[in-house]
Amino acid sequence: MSEPMTMMEPKRDSEQIHPTGVYPVVMAGGSGTRFWPLSRQHLPKQFLKMGGEDSLIVSTMKRLDALAPWSGRYIVAGEQHASLLKEHCPELPPQNLLIEPCARNTAPCVALAAQHIFQQDPQGIMILLPADHHIQNIPAFQRALTVAVEGAREGKILTLGIVPTRAETGYGYIHYAGGGIVNQSRLAVSKFVEKPPKSIAEQYLASGEYLWNSGVFVFSVQRILKEFQTQLPKLAMAMSKVGEALAQHDLNRYQQVLDQAFLEIRAVSIDVGIMEGADHIEVIPLDVGWSDVGHWGALHEVHKADAQHNILLGHPKHLALDAQHITVQSEKFTAVVGIDDLVVVNTDEATLVCAQDRVQDVRSIVEYLKEQGLKNLT
Amino acid sequence: MSEPMTMMEPKRDSEQIHPTGVYPVVMAGGSGTRFWPLSRQHLPKQFLKMGGEDSLIVSTMKRLDALAPWSGRYIVAGEQHASLLKEHCPELPPQNLLIEPCARNTAPCVALAAQHIFQQDPQGIMILLPADHHIQNIPAFQRALTVAVEGAREGKILTLGIVPTRAETGYGYIHYAGGGIVNQSRLAVSKFVEKPPKSIAEQYLASGEYLWNSGVFVFSVQRILKEFQTQLPKLAMAMSKVGEALAQHDLNRYQQVLDQAFLEIRAVSIDVGIMEGADHIEVIPLDVGWSDVGHWGALHEVHKADAQHNILLGHPKHLALDAQHITVQSEKFTAVVGIDDLVVVNTDEATLVCAQDRVQDVRSIVEYLKEQGLKNLT
Repeated sequence: MSEPMTMMEPKRDSEQIHPTGVYPVVMAGGSGTRFWPLSRQHLPKQFLKMGGEDSLIVSTMKRLDALAPWSGRYIVAGEQHASLLKEHCPELPPQNLLIEPCARNTAPCVALAAQHIFQQDPQGIMILLPADHHIQNIPAFQRALTVAVEGAREGKILTLGIVPTRAETGYGYIHYAGGGIVNQSRLAVSKFVEKPPKSIAEQYLASGEYLWNSGVFVFSVQRILKEFQTQLPKLAMAMSKVGEALAQHDLNRYQQVLDQAFLEIRAVSIDVGIMEGADHIEVIPLDVGWSDVGHWGALHEVHKADAQHNILLGHPKHLALDAQHITVQSEKFTAVVGIDDLVVVNTDEATLVCAQDRVQDVRSIVEYLKEQGLKNLT
Repeated sequence: MSEPMTMMEPKRDSEQIHPTGVYPVVMAGGSGTRFWPLSRQHLPKQFLKMGGEDSLIVSTMKRLDALAPWSGRYIVAGEQHASLLKEHCPELPPQNLLIEPCARNTAPCVALAAQHIFQQDPQGIMILLPADHHIQNIPAFQRALTVAVEGAREGKILTLGIVPTRAETGYGYIHYAGGGIVNQSRLAVSKFVEKPPKSIAEQYLASGEYLWNSGVFVFSVQRILKEFQTQLPKLAMAMSKVGEALAQHDLNRYQQVLDQAFLEIRAVSIDVGIMEGADHIEVIPLDVGWSDVGHWGALHEVHKADAQHNILLGHPKHLALDAQHITVQSEKFTAVVGIDDLVVVNTDEATLVCAQDRVQDVRSIVEYLKEQGLKNLT
């Protein structure tokens, strides 16, 4: 794709000139069983380094340095991860950590964040982001968001769509009208589609008219509040009470109505609850080396493998002897001999040895452990 | 094979009626890198349980309960394993633990034990046994040794030969004269042969004239001393000084001449140094479920696998999901998903993932670790 018009060189946060009125909201509610045994119920993926220098949540926050000061950034998460989040992001103002009383998928979280941001800046532009993705070309990602912010100021909803590199069945897709990725940074969305079967994913890839759904959305707080009123009126009603309590600085009542709201409302994702039914959505195609780091196999998208296609993380002397396409994650020395296409993960509490083409089944191990009364290992 | 004539039901040591003048000598000098990372320099195979109730050395000693009291049993080992041996075998009289000053293979150890036993009983019969083998049918094994002891009293050297069940290339073989295993418990040995290549091993198996060399030998102390004088005269000379010091109860001189002897003599196995050159050796064919437990693949000879041919040891809930012919040894929960023919071993310090047909290469990992300056992991 072409370079977007607006440029913004990333600088350190302290000396950053931020665009005004931009409010990133990071969704950090994920539980992430697919990186078991490294990820655990009490330590989901967003808190792991996945071989990088920073945890995924810290990397996500650093990518926002060019876009908003810490006072304008929000994180939504469950109570059980609040202390970990404070540890990983000590710069986040305490009032910007929004705790969901219980898990209700993403739409209620967005509605909650919208109430907070509306109180802070009724003209605000929200950037919705997952906490646990990997992005290689950060300046290009930041430029795309700046373009998206412009569109949001015009009242549009914008999303970042990743130019697909393979017929992936693990992602949702975005079909855009017109066909062919041309020299345009903003394209009209025709429809959102769920994770497709292999044959359909292959058609999508061949057509050149589909992008991967990155889960990043940009919109004004006013537009999203309107969408909630139209598409999810019960949720909007419940959340407006939360907004009232916020406006009155009544923290007791805030907690009361928030708890009540989450108790009543149904779980629904922002994609299904709002995006699929909204008009005038635009997508910005993006080719930045993106991965949702969705399972152990995705480490190949995040790390450079060696000449034998092995990724050996943790102990500096891991040995892969006559072994290719091996992923090892272990702080302890690990030797793999005479076998290909394997993921080996070792922690203080458990060991995983899994065929590369079976990494999606790691979730079923967590199910097995629950059935066997070994919840402490999940 | 047929049942030998002599029967002896095994009883507990305390109430045991032992044949008189029988002196088992257990060779416990092995270092065993092939069970890395479970076996280590400071913890060789003989001290491991290998999934059984007892360590291999303890199982070996228990099998001798029917044959000799503890006062008649000897263990030969290196200084570095003395304290572990005392821990595993607290019943062994301290003077029956013979410490080799340095590793010189088995012949010098046998010569040393012969001096000790000659002092204790010049008419004694020695039973030479490795410390780290597995035997399933213990009464049959004990009966065979009783038959061997009779032969040794006639001045013969006897060995136990295992009826081969496959064309194994990891064992030495014994060819016996006459051909065909008939209703005989003692057969004349024609020759000892080293570990053969696969094609030769297949010929051996098909011929029915070969047995596996178990490393168990039975002979009188007088016969073996004579063999040493004839075949290894320098060793015999050096060791006779050790015997003199013993006879004089001069412990200082004992240690001095022993150290000197081991310093001077060349390393040679009892098989090569004595057995291959001795006349009138007999072999007792034995079909008792024997294994030298020589590598991780041999666990299949020691343990009953489950319906998926998996052997899962350590944690009681190991999971093998769509995985067959898997061997797991780990105290921590281990999940193996979507892969066959694998050995997975996990200890507090290292992890091994090895193809079943590459278990012989585990030794090269230990070499690698030494090269990399990670001797603490060997």
